[in-house]
Order: sequence, then structure tokens, then C-alpha cells
Amino acid sequence: MQVITLNKLDLELYHEKLDNGLDVYIIPKANINNAYVTFNTKFGSKHQEFVPIDGKKMIKVPDGVAHFLEHKLFEQEDGTNPFAFYAEHGADANANTSQHKTTYLFSSSTDLEKNLEFLLDFVQKPYFTDENVEKEKGIIEQEIKMYQDDPFFTLYEKSIYNSICKHPIKIPIIGTVESINSITKEDLYACYNTFYHPSNMFLVITGNVNPEIILSVIKNNQNKKEFMTLKSKIKIKDYNEPDKVAKTKEKISMNIAIPKVSSTYKINISNISDIPRRDIIEYILLYFEMKFSSTSEFNDKLKEMHIINTNLDYMLVDVDTHILIIILAETEKPQKLLSMLESEINEFNVDLETFERKKKNIISSYIYMSDSIFRINNWVTSMIVREGEIIADEYQEIRNLSFDDLKKIIDNINFDNHNYVVINPKK
Amino acid sequence: MQVITLNKLDLELYHEKLDNGLDVYIIPKANINNAYVTFNTKFGSKHQEFVPIDGKKMIKVPDGVAHFLEHKLFEQEDGTNPFAFYAEHGADANANTSQHKTTYLFSSSTDLEKNLEFLLDFVQKPYFTDENVEKEKGIIEQEIKMYQDDPFFTLYEKSIYNSICKHPIKIPIIGTVESINSITKEDLYACYNTFYHPSNMFLVITGNVNPEIILSVIKNNQNKKEFMTLKSKIKIKDYNEPDKVAKTKEKISMNIAIPKVSSTYKINISNISDIPRRDIIEYILLYFEMKFSSTSEFNDKLKEMHIINTNLDYMLVDVDTHILIIILAETEKPQKLLSMLESEINEFNVDLETFERKKKNIISSYIYMSDSIFRINNWVTSMIVREGEIIADEYQEIRNLSFDDLKKIIDNINFDNHNYVVINPKK
Repeated sequence: MQVITLNKLDLELYHEKLDNGLDVYIIPKANINNAYVTFNTKFGSKHQEFVPIDGKKMIKVPDGVAHFLEHKLFEQEDGTNPFAFYAEHGADANANTSQHKTTYLFSSSTDLEKNLEFLLDFVQKPYFTDENVEKEKGIIEQEIKMYQDDPFFTLYEKSIYNSICKHPIKIPIIGTVESINSITKEDLYACYNTFYHPSNMFLVITGNVNPEIILSVIKNNQNKKEFMTLKSKIKIKDYNEPDKVAKTKEKISMNIAIPKVSSTYKINISNISDIPRRDIIEYILLYFEMKFSSTSEFNDKLKEMHIINTNLDYMLVDVDTHILIIILAETEKPQKLLSMLESEINEFNVDLETFERKKKNIISSYIYMSDSIFRINNWVTSMIVREGEIIADEYQEIRNLSFDDLKKIIDNINFDNHNYVVINPKK
Repeated sequence: MQVITLNKLDLELYHEKLDNGLDVYIIPKANINNAYVTFNTKFGSKHQEFVPIDGKKMIKVPDGVAHFLEHKLFEQEDGTNPFAFYAEHGADANANTSQHKTTYLFSSSTDLEKNLEFLLDFVQKPYFTDENVEKEKGIIEQEIKMYQDDPFFTLYEKSIYNSICKHPIKIPIIGTVESINSITKEDLYACYNTFYHPSNMFLVITGNVNPEIILSVIKNNQNKKEFMTLKSKIKIKDYNEPDKVAKTKEKISMNIAIPKVSSTYKINISNISDIPRRDIIEYILLYFEMKFSSTSEFNDKLKEMHIINTNLDYMLVDVDTHILIIILAETEKPQKLLSMLESEINEFNVDLETFERKKKNIISSYIYMSDSIFRINNWVTSMIVREGEIIADEYQEIRNLSFDDLKKIIDNINFDNHNYVVINPKK
């Protein structure tokens, strides 16, 4: 096993790639009572056009397949219900699908080995039939309808949809009623066989564990199973996403009390400078944090002017060559807020002192992460998905961020590619 | 059915008390796709000494019984698993136990009537055996151990434990390993028969529903069932909680990276003035919000002095005659922070303008609530538990809060009864 010391975290990360390609990451943390295990595949809603493991030609699967597949793995041929199994073994289990990955997880303070083997087994034992695929459609349709009632969720989805021209991140993770209804068990098996191949998956185990023992449990389990032969890297379609947004504005009505607004900036990060991609994202996030967080001067000003009552919020969406920054707010004066946001974003009125304070914040959260086996696990998981590797000294990387580079990067960004969505109360 | 119009929310609340004593509250919201249903009993961890429905003498049940009972209602005699039932019927189900109440809930956009009947049925069909009670102990023991690893949870529990002398709110909701192991099925039935009597429970239904139809479904369901006769109001022990805290300071060590601190103020609200209890609590919360929230000057000052990196946090615990306000922070300088908090709290340096802005905030959250059937439901539920009745015009009540009354109340509060807990990293 490879052992990596994580600087300033007082933790060691054990890594081994098994013969079948599965990457195993273990971070032991002593003196605590439980363990947290995630089993991840690099398969999310954005992986829509690809060459299947046993095919030669690119295929396109219906919107929402990754999430549908996640649901269906909880149905086992022998009738076992994974949630019931974990409830009986003192563990909490769950799963989630994002644009970039699907994660199956449990946490428990007892029966770790049994629970871990069960996780590997149920995720690696697909059981899709015409009947059970058909039955799931109704369940997911109801889930889709429930999301549709949430105004902030609607803002988020519309913001992405209107910003992106070609990239499949455009599409809601859960799909649409129409797309879901077109899913077949053949679609599910094509995705499953390709993206749930061990070489496209990884396990992250954090908590009170012995790396050697855990690894041998995993190896024994994996050695008993057979997988298809992967001839080459999975081929996924490339999208030549333009810089322009697909639609600049949209107004909708919903059954709400206070209007809600999103303002989205689309930024091409593939041609900004020779600084590493993750640093560019970190700089842009710092910039937005300084300018639009709840502690920013601009946020205070909006409150004093009674344009907002609750704080601004913002989030980042990673679109490979681009990123989207979505600013969200509730306001009785949507147009006034939008024009103020636009002029504010183009003014580089941030100072070194605030920059250093925000950096200190990030460093503190980084160190604080080591207090929680959940946060450590999420940190490893998203790093593997985003970077494909472990950054052992993120502490030093954050420390090295400089105000000069921030200025250079922000100067190079064109904030002209943006759009907005307004949700008004229904009359 | 009684119909109450909720001022400024554009909503109507339908209420009916059934013959068996069950209160039903329905708030229809059109143009959305789903409904949210909570089935609540006014039974939480604080209800520890009481006269059982079929007894004459006060009994004392082991710590953690309410939460244990919540777990056990999910085990049905016929082997049905409520989670599995709801998953198959397109619904999400859950339950939670607080110091004051236990809630069983589901949300769904389909099969509302079937899901609602199932909720009434599984909660009203207890099945406790010596064997299944014994088996549950191991599961809850593991849950207790998992909580013990969370530093903020530990801070919260220690803060309450050290602040309170007699009131059973002192005790962790989940109990201790020892107390859990002493629970018998007789304890569970004593609590169940007393506190799960329909007259001590209430249903809250929010969403796209027709009040008349839903009410008739509930009535039909309840009319088929028999309950014990309740001769009088449930008798619960009174605790004469003193104003002093039980312990003024405690330092512990955990496996963490950054020290964490809590500072807790114990305030007797039973003798402050003739203003209604809920207004007193609102004023005290406003005061703490102005002084210690992330947007307060004091929070900014602590950041500039590099005493904190992440914002202060605070929470309120309702202890009947008293309230606790717990301020939480991460800091490398615990003693400095604690002394600054102490001098800050005693200085009435808040102004009318900030007061009015914070009031606007509360009014905005109040109106915003009507955008979500979850928030409306929680609002009704906590009002029933706290106030025992619906406040139809909370909007006007918030508007009427005055800066003069704030000053009068704060002047009457003695902030001397306080304590702190510091968690240091293990060496």
C-alpha cells in the first residue's frame, strides 16, 4: 500500500489499486467509534454519450439514467432490501447521484466488515428486469414532480439549462418525465457494465479502521467476482461548449410569496492562464466570496437599501471547460438587484486584507475537516472525481494563493456571458 | 371544521378535534404537486416522570425512552417495514424525537390517502416484545457511540447538562448506554398508552389536499379503533428548576484539530414581566441575533482580531421556566473569546436601526415560510407544542415588537448565570 501523509491534518492516507482496477483509499482515525464508507463510480448525469464496454459505436442514453440506475441497485434479485439490512446492522445507508458521480454509502460503529462486504455485493449485483424498470418509472416520476415545487431548485435548474448550449450538464440530474419513461433495462445494463466496472470506481473508507485488515477483506471479496475485460479507457463524447449562454433571461411564475432571482456567470476557465485549473477555481470562488458572501460590504449595502432581507447565496457548477457561478437571492426588487449585481461584479474593489482573511478561513476549514470522518471522506471523493488524484499538501497550495494572481485572473475574465432567471409569485 | 385565516400568508388553516381527542390541522396549498404529513405526540425526552394512564402513582422511566419508542414503532407485528412501504408508494418517510415531542412524517405526491392511513396505522399499532426490545438496545447503543464523536454535539449536550440542575431536559435525548439497557417493554407500553393517546397527539397536513376529503379519511380510520379512556389530563412532574447553573466550567479533550467552545446563559423567563412568554423569547433571540450573529459588529471584531475564523453560532433551548442560550465557536484562543463574550453580553450597545432591520428579517422569513409546505408544517407543529394553540396573526405580533420593550426586558435579565465548556485537541 502506498501511504501519503496529509500535511497539517495529522492523518495518513493509504492507497491501493486492486488487480481489477478498483482504487481503495483508507484514512484511519483513531479514538473515535465509527467508520464511514463510500463506494463511488465516476458516472453521473453528464455521462450521456459514450462507447459501451462491449461496443464500438458511441451511444446516447436517455436523460436521468445515472440516477435511475442508482435507484435500481437497491432492488436485489433475492429480495434483500439494503436499507433494511443496514438498519438491522446498526448502520445508516444512503446513495446520491450528481452531475459527475454516483455514491453509495453507509456509516456504522459496528459490524464494519460485514457492512462493507454487503455494500460491495449489492452495488456489484445488478438486477434489472422489464417489470422492475417499469415500476420504478412511476416512483421517479413522483420524485420529479416533488422537485418541481421547490422555487430555489427550479432557479438552480433553469440557471444551468439557460447557461449551457451543448454540454449534458444542461439536463436535470433526475431527467424528465418523458426521458425517464423511455429508459429500458438495456440502457441500464449498457451504463452499468461500462461505468460500474471496478476500474471506473473507487472506495473511500474513513474512521477507526485497520488498513491492512480492511484491504484484505476487500481483496477477498473482489477476487471472488468476475468482471468484463476493459480493452481501453472509457470513451466519452467531447462537447465543444461555446462561451455564450444559451438564453439571457427568463421569467416564470410559481406559487410563492416573495420573488426569487438568480444571476449566473459563465466563465471559460480553459484559456485563462497557466495556473492549475483547481487554483483558478479557488481564486474565482475567493473573489465571489469577498464580493457576495453574507459578510461582504455589498451584501450589507443591499440590506441597508432594503433590496434583500436574507443574505445572498451563490454556488459553483463545474462544466469541464467552463464554470458557472449562480448567485441566488430573494428580493421584492428583482431588476434593481440584477443591475446592481452586474455593475458590482465588474468592479475589482477587493483588498489584500480581506483576501488574507478569507484565505485564513479556507485554511481553517481545511484543518477543521480532520475533525470529521464524513468531511474527510467527502474531501477525498470530490478530489478523486475532480482531479483524478490526491493532493497531499492542499494546505500549502491554499497558503500559496496570492493577491497578485487573483487580480491577474479576474482581469482576464470576461463577465459578459451571463443570464438571469426571475420567479414571480403567481397572481 | 374551524377555519382560521393566516394573516399575510395567503393561507387558510382548517382545524378539527375528533371525538377521540386527536387534533387535525390542514393547510391546503394549491398549484403544487405534493403533500407533507406529520403525526405528532407531545412526548419527548423531558417527559420522564408522570402518572400512567392506567395508574395512580407517578413513575419514572429510564433516560432515552421517547427516542427508543420512536425506533420501535417502525417494527410491526406483521413484519411490514414502514420505510419499505413508503419507498414503494413514492413517498419519503422519517421520524424524530426532540426534548418536547416525537414526530412521524412522510411526504408524497401520490397515493396521499393510502400513505396517510398507513401512517395512522403503524404509529397506532405498537408491538413491543422482550426479544425485539432487547435487539434494539444494541442498535441504539451504536447510535449513542456515533454521536459521541461529534465535537459540536458533545458541546451542546455538555452545555445543557452543566446548566440544568433538576429538569430532565438535562439528559441526552437518546439516553445513555446504561439507561437504554434498563428499558423494558413495560416501560414502553406505559409511555405509549399514556402519551400516544389520540388526545395527546395531533396531525398536521400541508399541501395540495382537499380538507373535507382528508378529514373524512382520518375520521373513518380513527372510528375503527379503540383507545383507553383518559380520565383526566396527563399528570407530569413539575421541577422547581433553580436559576443557578449546575456547573460553571468544564474542559474536555477530543480527537479534534481546532479547539471548540460553548458559552451558555441560563435565563429565568417566568418572572421577567407581563409580556407573553413567546414575545419574551423573541426579544431575547433578537438581542442575541443583533449582538452575536455572523453580521454583528462583535463577530466582525473577533475576526479582525483573529480570534475566530468561522462565524459564531448560537441556539436556544426551551426549559419551561427558563431558557438557555448557547453560543458556539471554534477558536485557538478559548479564554480570550470567553472573556470578550462575557463583557459584550452585559453591554446594551444595540440600536433601533439594527433592531428594525432584524425585525424585517423575521417578517420576511415568516412570509417566506408560505413558499414551502415543509416550513408551514414545522411552524404549525412547533406552535402547537410550544403554545398549545395557533397564533393566527404572528405577522402582527412580530410587527408590534418594540425597541423600548426590548430594552426593558434585557435590563431585567441577569446574565450572571452562565457557564462554559471547552473542547481541546487531544495531545
